[in-house]
Amino acid sequence: MNCEILSVGTELLLGNTVNTDAAELSDRLAGLGINVFWHTVVGDNPKRLAEAVAIARKRADLIITTGGLGPTYDDLTKNVLAECFGRKLELHPEEAEFLKAWFAKNASTKYTDNNLQQAYLPENCTVFHNDWGTAPGCAFEEQGVHVIMLPGPPRECVPMFEVCAVPYLKGLAADVIFSHQIKVFGIGESAAESMLRSEMERMQNPTLATYAKFGEVMLRVTAKAPTEWAAEAMCRPVTEHVRDILGDKVYGVDVPSLEALALDIMREKGLTLSAAESLTGGLIGERFTALPGASAVFKGGAVTYCDEVKAALLGIDPALIADKGAVSFEVAAAMARGVRKAVGADVGLSATGLAGPDGDGVHPVGTVFVGLADKDAVYVRQLHLGSGRARVRQLAASHAFDMLRRYLQGLDIVPEQYS
Amino acid sequence: MNCEILSVGTELLLGNTVNTDAAELSDRLAGLGINVFWHTVVGDNPKRLAEAVAIARKRADLIITTGGLGPTYDDLTKNVLAECFGRKLELHPEEAEFLKAWFAKNASTKYTDNNLQQAYLPENCTVFHNDWGTAPGCAFEEQGVHVIMLPGPPRECVPMFEVCAVPYLKGLAADVIFSHQIKVFGIGESAAESMLRSEMERMQNPTLATYAKFGEVMLRVTAKAPTEWAAEAMCRPVTEHVRDILGDKVYGVDVPSLEALALDIMREKGLTLSAAESLTGGLIGERFTALPGASAVFKGGAVTYCDEVKAALLGIDPALIADKGAVSFEVAAAMARGVRKAVGADVGLSATGLAGPDGDGVHPVGTVFVGLADKDAVYVRQLHLGSGRARVRQLAASHAFDMLRRYLQGLDIVPEQYS
Repeated sequence: MNCEILSVGTELLLGNTVNTDAAELSDRLAGLGINVFWHTVVGDNPKRLAEAVAIARKRADLIITTGGLGPTYDDLTKNVLAECFGRKLELHPEEAEFLKAWFAKNASTKYTDNNLQQAYLPENCTVFHNDWGTAPGCAFEEQGVHVIMLPGPPRECVPMFEVCAVPYLKGLAADVIFSHQIKVFGIGESAAESMLRSEMERMQNPTLATYAKFGEVMLRVTAKAPTEWAAEAMCRPVTEHVRDILGDKVYGVDVPSLEALALDIMREKGLTLSAAESLTGGLIGERFTALPGASAVFKGGAVTYCDEVKAALLGIDPALIADKGAVSFEVAAAMARGVRKAVGADVGLSATGLAGPDGDGVHPVGTVFVGLADKDAVYVRQLHLGSGRARVRQLAASHAFDMLRRYLQGLDIVPEQYS
Repeated sequence: MNCEILSVGTELLLGNTVNTDAAELSDRLAGLGINVFWHTVVGDNPKRLAEAVAIARKRADLIITTGGLGPTYDDLTKNVLAECFGRKLELHPEEAEFLKAWFAKNASTKYTDNNLQQAYLPENCTVFHNDWGTAPGCAFEEQGVHVIMLPGPPRECVPMFEVCAVPYLKGLAADVIFSHQIKVFGIGESAAESMLRSEMERMQNPTLATYAKFGEVMLRVTAKAPTEWAAEAMCRPVTEHVRDILGDKVYGVDVPSLEALALDIMREKGLTLSAAESLTGGLIGERFTALPGASAVFKGGAVTYCDEVKAALLGIDPALIADKGAVSFEVAAAMARGVRKAVGADVGLSATGLAGPDGDGVHPVGTVFVGLADKDAVYVRQLHLGSGRARVRQLAASHAFDMLRRYLQGLDIVPEQYS
C-alpha cells in the first residue's frame, strides 16, 4: 500500500505550526509496513485542496488527511473530499447526540449551530469517534483508493490514528504486520549498519532497517504473517541476533526513551533520583519530569549555572572549582555527589560543560563531563560533543540518562570509549 | 509570487525527522509577502522527485527545495532539478577549494572523492556559500520559475535562507516588503482579532494579520513600497495603533520571545535571575539557558519536585507546606523568595501546580501558582491552565517569563485577570 498524507491548514503554510502529525503518522505507518511516499500540505482553500486530492488519488492507494474537520467556515476537508469522491455528507445522529452532550458538559465553550457541522460525514463511511476532542474522523474506500480523515490537533490526530485507523488498516491487509523497535545508544547509525549489513541485505521477511534519531539509533524489525502470533515469532530471533551483535548498546526493545526506561526500573526498585545541572540548565529535570508518574522517582535538583551556586546549593568546595575549573572531571563528580546528598536521593546525576557558542579559553566548545553518584561510588564520562548549543545540551542530557540506565541494568557505567 | 516548498528526504517520510525547515521558511516567506501555497515532501527517489518538480513548476513561480545536497549517493536534488530544468551541473572551483580546506581542518571527518560532488552546481546559477556546513545551495531562474535549493539540516537551511536567499528574493521584487512582528501575551487570538477587526478588514497596504502561537499571539504588519524606508514608515503608525489598542499585553515588537526580551533587559541593567521549579521540573531554567549569553544573567535554581527538597534547598518551613499545601499561593511566594536568597540573585521566579494527568484530590489539574520575588516584595499569579501535561508546563513557564518582563518594564506584575 502506497500512502500520501495530505495535511490541510493555512497555519502550516504560514509556518505558525510545524507538521508533527505527518511525522507521527509516518512513523506508525512504517511500523505497519505501509509505504509513505508523499506528504502534501495545502491551506484552507477548496480549489487547491481539490487539486491536491486529484493528484493524490492518481499516485496513492491510501490518502490520509489531517485537519479541517472542525466547526468553522474554513474547515472544509470533509466537503471537498466528499465532492472529489462523489459522496454526499449525511448527519450522523450518534455523533450529533455526542456533540450536544459534550457542549452541555463543557459550559465554558459556547454551543453554536456550526458545531453540528462536525456530525456530518460522507455516506457509507466508517466513523472514527473522537474521544480526545469533538470532531469525528472517518474512513471509506472509493475505486480502489482508501481515504482516512483525521482531525488536525496532534492530541486528537495521533490517538485517533492509533485507536481507530490502525485496526481499520489492519483489517484491509490479508497479512498481519508485526514490528519491534530496537533502541540503541552509544553507537552511530553507519557503524550499526556496517555491523548488520549482511542481515539487512539478505532478509526479505522479516526486514531490518535502521533510523538515526538525535544521538540514538533505532532498528525496526518488521514481519508479515497470517497471524500476529506468527509474525511476532518471526521477529523474535532477529531481535535476539541484533542484541547479540550490538551488545549492551541496545538499551531496550519497544521502550520509548532512555529516561522512560530508567523511570520504570527505578519505580519498580523504589529508587529516587536527583540532578545537578550546569550546561543543561534544567533539561535533565525537564525531560525526566515530562514523563507522567515522574514524581514517584524524581525528588529534585539544582541548576548551578555559576560557581557560587555550586558551592551554595551543593556544598562544593570553591577551592576545587578554582583548582580544577568548573568544566572538569572532579567538579562533575562533586556535583553528582553533592546533589544526591542535598536532595536526599539514591542517585545523583550531573552535567557540566560548554554548550557554546562561546568557549572558556581552555576547552573546546562541546567538552562535557557527565556524572552519576550513588551512596558508594561516583562515575564520570568525558565527552566531546561538537558544536550547536541545543544539540550539545540534548546530547549531554541523553548521556546522563544512558549512564543511569546502564547503572540500573548492572552494566559498565563508563565504557572504555568515554573514559 | 506563489511559492512551493519541496522537501527531499526519506527520513521525513519515515517520521524520523519533523519538517521544521518548511515551517521556518514559511514563517520568513510570509514576512517577505510571498504566498506559500504548498509544502511537498518526497523521498530520496529520482522518479518521484522529478514528478513532484513537474507538478510544482506548473502551479508555483518559486520552488524552494530543502535537503539532498550532500555527498552521498542518495543526495540527488541537484541532479534531478538540473535535469528537469535542462541545465548541466558544473564544478565550482571556489566551492571545491573550500571543501578541500574544510576537510583538511576537520581532521575527524574523512575526505572522500564523493565530497567533491557538493561543489557541482547547475550552470549559470547564483551560488549560496554554506558557512554553516559543507554543501552549498544555489538559485536560478528558468522560464519564469525561480528555483532555490537549500541544504536539509535546519542549522544550515535557516541561516542560508536568511543570509543568501532573502537578499536574492528581495532583488527580484520591484517593491520592497517590510514587516513588523508585534508580540502579545495574556490575550487570546480571537479576542485580539475582535479588538482589531475593523483595521484588519479595512487595510490593504500595510496589511495586519494575527497568528496564534502556543499561549501567545503574534500580529504581523506588512507594507510594500519602493524603498525599505517608505515601507517601514507605512508600518510604524499601524504598529503604534495596535499598541494603543492592546496596551501592555504587547510585550515587544520584533523580539523573539518573552525570555529573550527579559535576558536583554536584565543584562543591560546588570540584574541576575534564579528559578525554583516544581511542576515545570527545570523547564524555566532550560528555556532561559537555551539563549546564548544566558550565563551573564541566570545564576541557577532549584528543581523541587517533592516537599522535603523545598525545605532542604530553599529553606521553606515544612509547616507552611503542611498547612497550605504544596500547590498554593503561599508556597509559590516562599519558593520565589527562597531561591533568590539561596542563589544570591536579584530576582527569583517560581512555579508550583498540577500538570496532570493525575490530580492531588484538592485542585483540578491545570491549577498553577507562579511567583516572582525581588528584595522588596513577592508577587504571585493564580492560573487555571486546563489539561495536557506538556501544554500546562509550557504555559506555566511562559507566565513566569511574562511576570518577569512586566516587572522589568515597570508594569503591574499581577494584572486583575490573574489575581
